[in-house]
Amino acid sequence: MTSDGCNLRVNSERLRADFEALSDIGATVGGGVSRLALSNEDLEARSWFADRIEEAGLQVKDDEVGNLSGLLSADDAGAKTLMIGSHLDTVPNGGRYDGAIGVLAALECLRRIHETGVKPRYHLEAIDFTDEEGTWKSLFGSNGIIGKISSDDITDSLTDNMAFRAALYRAGIMLPELQNARRNPASILGFLELHIEQGKILHERGLDIGIVDRIVGRATYNVVYQGEAAHAGTTTADERHDALQGAAAFIIAAHKRLTEDFPGGVVNCGGVSVMPESFNVVPAEASLLVEFRHPDTATLGDMEALMLELAQECAAAHRLTVATERVMHRAAERMSGYLTRQIESACQAEGARCMPIASYSGHNAQIMNQMAPAGMIFLPSVDGISHNPREFTEWRHVEIGANVLLRTVLQLTV
Amino acid sequence: MTSDGCNLRVNSERLRADFEALSDIGATVGGGVSRLALSNEDLEARSWFADRIEEAGLQVKDDEVGNLSGLLSADDAGAKTLMIGSHLDTVPNGGRYDGAIGVLAALECLRRIHETGVKPRYHLEAIDFTDEEGTWKSLFGSNGIIGKISSDDITDSLTDNMAFRAALYRAGIMLPELQNARRNPASILGFLELHIEQGKILHERGLDIGIVDRIVGRATYNVVYQGEAAHAGTTTADERHDALQGAAAFIIAAHKRLTEDFPGGVVNCGGVSVMPESFNVVPAEASLLVEFRHPDTATLGDMEALMLELAQECAAAHRLTVATERVMHRAAERMSGYLTRQIESACQAEGARCMPIASYSGHNAQIMNQMAPAGMIFLPSVDGISHNPREFTEWRHVEIGANVLLRTVLQLTV
Repeated sequence: MTSDGCNLRVNSERLRADFEALSDIGATVGGGVSRLALSNEDLEARSWFADRIEEAGLQVKDDEVGNLSGLLSADDAGAKTLMIGSHLDTVPNGGRYDGAIGVLAALECLRRIHETGVKPRYHLEAIDFTDEEGTWKSLFGSNGIIGKISSDDITDSLTDNMAFRAALYRAGIMLPELQNARRNPASILGFLELHIEQGKILHERGLDIGIVDRIVGRATYNVVYQGEAAHAGTTTADERHDALQGAAAFIIAAHKRLTEDFPGGVVNCGGVSVMPESFNVVPAEASLLVEFRHPDTATLGDMEALMLELAQECAAAHRLTVATERVMHRAAERMSGYLTRQIESACQAEGARCMPIASYSGHNAQIMNQMAPAGMIFLPSVDGISHNPREFTEWRHVEIGANVLLRTVLQLTV
Repeated sequence: MTSDGCNLRVNSERLRADFEALSDIGATVGGGVSRLALSNEDLEARSWFADRIEEAGLQVKDDEVGNLSGLLSADDAGAKTLMIGSHLDTVPNGGRYDGAIGVLAALECLRRIHETGVKPRYHLEAIDFTDEEGTWKSLFGSNGIIGKISSDDITDSLTDNMAFRAALYRAGIMLPELQNARRNPASILGFLELHIEQGKILHERGLDIGIVDRIVGRATYNVVYQGEAAHAGTTTADERHDALQGAAAFIIAAHKRLTEDFPGGVVNCGGVSVMPESFNVVPAEASLLVEFRHPDTATLGDMEALMLELAQECAAAHRLTVATERVMHRAAERMSGYLTRQIESACQAEGARCMPIASYSGHNAQIMNQMAPAGMIFLPSVDGISHNPREFTEWRHVEIGANVLLRTVLQLTV
């Protein structure tokens, strides 16, 4: 198809009306939204979404992990599917844009294509993924599609997943069937996701669109310093084995060294708990929650090695031992070069000022990328505020983003 | 009396038999003792102590805050009383010597004086103070004697003291009567306490006795850093208001600066709790437990001022606010010079190698010193181990200490 054939535009008023209606579901007093995955509000939002799909003359589909889709089928039943979407769930008292914009824009693309009578060569699917935010299990829905969810993940022996199981059951999701959500990679043409940036790079540079080229890898660790409890009055500084001093030194060193040595990485010490936790006892144990991210998996490994080295150095300096336990590791993902170029040319055609950008938060695109080419379009977040009722994206940017998404879909499928 | 008249010695075998019998009450598997104040074990130890008092032909006495004493009365009913003692309660799984040695040696002094027919000019009282360790309220018994305990201290609105009240009631201690434990300062000649050092100074110098000239003052603070929760992936280092980084900087700075600037002081950061405590959220709040001690009250004030300055500096350096709340403050105590000299001359007569020493832990002597001259005798703790089943003092040191105590009592009262 010529680029002229892609000159379709979304119905911005209709998209905005959808956005306003959806924002009312789970609205909080401060202007935010609480639609925790599988909660009443989330189920209400899905039901509302299913109504919109039917209203548009599209086919409603759900799968074994609760993902909910609208389908626009190609004439050739054996054609591959281009999936487009994001998530309707939110964190507690989160913002209105995160996830929602991506699902609604995907629906609007299919609706617009359908009503204008354009006939794509591939099936189109606008999808809402279950539990992106991790109320129960982060990126549950997309992991289900790539075959990484089974009932074993819910019924592990370490965690009491009673409430999760009940929530799944109530939503009609059956444990023994979870693994059937897996799709055949050969059936997927690709995946596109429109999402707010959640950082302030695009906003500060005054751009319209970020074309995500990488999604950060992430590793989390428990770092546990072990010293010796002692009387805080009678034990001199030289005699102490103070686990908290070791942990404090590590916090300072990890932020300083990892930030200096890895400009593209981020590190966080999100918590520390101390035993026995008393004014007059030298801490015997200090247990840290440590996380670091980098857009390059090999460099993430280098950060990990330096972090472990620093943990040992701080232990030695304070006459302690330290145990480090890797809690999770998710490799960085490089987005499809082909889709990135397609989005870039759509931006050019739409006159959208854009830049390549790395995503420092996790997304369904990162999971989908493991089975099929995935691309991601970021919208500017005003002041980078995220997971907060004050999260805001100017509507003109939503409109530009939805049109870039629509044009990319048309370039790929018509 | 001439110094020859003081040539009485304790019955070391009897004292040791008492010590072994008492150690069985609340004995733990690792060789320690759990006799938490007002617990079954503590009540059993008191009952055992009362039996020993009666067995020795002394008079049993208790007061309105539960202190339990053996009395040897002087002929002159209007004479002042020399009080001698310590505490039978312990921390959970504590050592066998802490407190116990001081009570048993006091009893042995009275018993020895009584059985040899010596007639002191003052009443002698061997006392076990209630709850020195602070299972419920630190130094409860001695504070009762100086008139600082009333039912208001138990029924404050901030703390649920239900269990404490029940424990007092079970021990026969009535809330409305607590304040009647107060003694008339004019009736007290002085107070002597024998106790293990709980530090390793005497042990390392190979000495027999420490003559306590000062007991440290102590202040405790809650230091609360307030920042802003943020997404740990998308918020760059420059944009963060990370409460835990501020707290970590404070921990390092407080230990370094307070130790450097105040060689006679000690500092402890005993705990820190973080909100919201998650791998992927920049900490919004970090709340520290801070304690410092110094044997000089004015210098303790200087430490306090520097600590508050450092707290602000670390807040500013990390773009945070900090709130500091003083939880408690206990002034340092200078022991009676007269009693210190009496103990010193008793050491010389006994051939005990001694040194003046500051106590870095709190003791009943510190409270009693506020109403009457108080003196304190320290015994070497092997390796300084304290509040631990491995707490140990060589028996020869216990014997020397008990003899120094007996000689001091005789010097003062015969």
